[in-house]
Amino acid sequence: MTAISPSIDGVAGFQVAGVHAGLKKDGALDLALVVSECDCVTAGVFTRNKVRAAPVLLDMQRLADNPANIRAVVTNSACANACTGTLGLENARTTARLTADALAISAEQVLVMSTGVIGEHLPMGAIARGIALSSAGLSDDWAAAAAAIMTTDTRPKLASVRVECAGGSYTIAGMAKGAGMIAPDMATMLSVVVTDAALELGELQNALSSAAQQSFNRIVVDGDTSTNDTVLLLANGKSGVHVEDADDLAAFQEALDALTRYLAQEIVRDGEGVTKFVTLDIVNAATVADAERIGQTIGASLLTKSAFYGSDANWGRIVAAAGRAGTAFDPDRSSLWVAAGESPSEPGLQIFAGGMPADYQEADAAAIMSAPAMTFKLDCGLGQGNATIWTCDISHEYISINGDYRS
Amino acid sequence: MTAISPSIDGVAGFQVAGVHAGLKKDGALDLALVVSECDCVTAGVFTRNKVRAAPVLLDMQRLADNPANIRAVVTNSACANACTGTLGLENARTTARLTADALAISAEQVLVMSTGVIGEHLPMGAIARGIALSSAGLSDDWAAAAAAIMTTDTRPKLASVRVECAGGSYTIAGMAKGAGMIAPDMATMLSVVVTDAALELGELQNALSSAAQQSFNRIVVDGDTSTNDTVLLLANGKSGVHVEDADDLAAFQEALDALTRYLAQEIVRDGEGVTKFVTLDIVNAATVADAERIGQTIGASLLTKSAFYGSDANWGRIVAAAGRAGTAFDPDRSSLWVAAGESPSEPGLQIFAGGMPADYQEADAAAIMSAPAMTFKLDCGLGQGNATIWTCDISHEYISINGDYRS
Repeated sequence: MTAISPSIDGVAGFQVAGVHAGLKKDGALDLALVVSECDCVTAGVFTRNKVRAAPVLLDMQRLADNPANIRAVVTNSACANACTGTLGLENARTTARLTADALAISAEQVLVMSTGVIGEHLPMGAIARGIALSSAGLSDDWAAAAAAIMTTDTRPKLASVRVECAGGSYTIAGMAKGAGMIAPDMATMLSVVVTDAALELGELQNALSSAAQQSFNRIVVDGDTSTNDTVLLLANGKSGVHVEDADDLAAFQEALDALTRYLAQEIVRDGEGVTKFVTLDIVNAATVADAERIGQTIGASLLTKSAFYGSDANWGRIVAAAGRAGTAFDPDRSSLWVAAGESPSEPGLQIFAGGMPADYQEADAAAIMSAPAMTFKLDCGLGQGNATIWTCDISHEYISINGDYRS
Repeated sequence: MTAISPSIDGVAGFQVAGVHAGLKKDGALDLALVVSECDCVTAGVFTRNKVRAAPVLLDMQRLADNPANIRAVVTNSACANACTGTLGLENARTTARLTADALAISAEQVLVMSTGVIGEHLPMGAIARGIALSSAGLSDDWAAAAAAIMTTDTRPKLASVRVECAGGSYTIAGMAKGAGMIAPDMATMLSVVVTDAALELGELQNALSSAAQQSFNRIVVDGDTSTNDTVLLLANGKSGVHVEDADDLAAFQEALDALTRYLAQEIVRDGEGVTKFVTLDIVNAATVADAERIGQTIGASLLTKSAFYGSDANWGRIVAAAGRAGTAFDPDRSSLWVAAGESPSEPGLQIFAGGMPADYQEADAAAIMSAPAMTFKLDCGLGQGNATIWTCDISHEYISINGDYRS
């Protein structure tokens, strides 16, 4: 197992800042800057929503044109710069140029991320102020940077992992924000991951795509997918370690997977109004894609989420959600178990068996479900497709947050 | 316009009953019987969930084998008889046989519907008592029958329409139940529609399939699809009117469309915890199917539903939901309007225009959205595909109802 630390002590060649630029009314941190002292090979994964925010469009273009010498990522919260047309794109470009000017680099070396309300223009005065403040105050304070990208998150999410290999040791570290609008295909999910290892671009992109698929793409908070989802991975090589051979690449992948999985789970734990952390182990579906889709459909179902909230072992809702996932599914071949905890060693109490209620006591199931974390194992009895999805309940608090987000 | 009456005075040759059989703990009506004095040609539309409840399986078989001489429909609430295996199917068959015995008809002439909690076996003693009571108390009391099929519905839903044609006049009348788990493809939605007109089976099935597609399949309460969805249409011909020629068939379709649309909208209005009735007019999508899917995705989005609840004209969430519908969609060609009311004559206030926020006052939008009914018109600017979807907000009350449904 890879040991993930829930903090970042520093990564060679990277400095960061989190400042109050003036976008958030309450004076909280709202602009983050991540800077490398040398060029980074950079990979990205972006939203699949047809509505892409201006910073997403800009970054996709930058990484297509210029993936080998990125130097900085500037991120603002409180305004998504989405559905803002040509002015929005211009503002994203200006944000990059102002950052480049402050750091004495080229605008093409800067990536931009935004999160917050859709359909409002970036307050460029505040952005300029934030860039001036942050570029003048770079340090190792990753906690401040992680706080500055939060929206309705209640706490910063950051993590790091140290990897030893034949050529030496290096660090992978990252921060993320989530909260609401979290769904398969990432939702309003921003993450910047950096490493002081050196990797070739193709390997780096493959590693990030693979890691995102088993982490950020396997969490469901509310089933909505945002216009701004972005995960970036910057590798500056300052550790002197070149990750090239198969063993080293496998070790890098394992560490990156563990890091992104941790950050993704942190997003679920801190989801809007979440009171329960729910792991859905879907096994023996016809294919892995089917298993993912069944888990995502269960995780997005309002009825199952309400039952999680109420500690109600209403397995009928889980099986019914599986049945409408649009995949192969046969209740008569399916069984379902529930256990307390995030990754229990045993599947626990069987509550559904081959199309029928299992023989169990309701009170036992309710006792398991009253825990803050629970795991359902759904055996579909059809094939070898397995996937684990992390999700949560829906509470009164979610409605309060999202009924009143903009006021 | 077809004049829909929100009550049923009686339909020639049909009698009904709604009784307390003992399934509901609070003594409320929980078993309904609809009986025709002569054979009915019968059409059905059923859930597309892969998990089908026992009564759905039984009725699908009955209508495949025996669609021309159905005599009765028996419906219980409080127990869905879903995920109940072979015993569940046996119980559904026994329910039909007991009903047939009480009415001195054949078991093959009886259809069965169930709604309620999944995964519990039908209490057959209560069912037998309800069948005895209801078969002994048949009358024109459709309100009692409609009350007996309710689960978390707060009021019975019934309607009738009188149609005049060259050959005379006839009635179409129906009842429905909904409340939660309402989604495209119908969800826990039961409806029995009867007519004293005579129609050929193929015409009747076509009329019902078409009517369901533009009514029950265009409503979204929570995006879940149930194991028990059933809409039945029984035609006994007692009015002496044969609906055969093209004009008469068109008039029948128009009346059936209006009736089912009314019942479907009633289901949304009475959805669990609903405080706002929202009409989504999706126009100029690439195809009708795309328009339906865009409307359904918006209607099922937790973020848009929360914004409806909070009277927040957060059009960004609506556009973002359209962008993830899996259809053709281009925000730069799209525009969005909002108006108060269920079917306003004008599109109202434009809030989004060609990929950009429109020039409007937030207070004006909030004022419109504080109304109990509102209509959004989304022009996709891509083709000629139009569809209207009816949906609702999500409130704290929904969470309370569904977090605590079984206790």
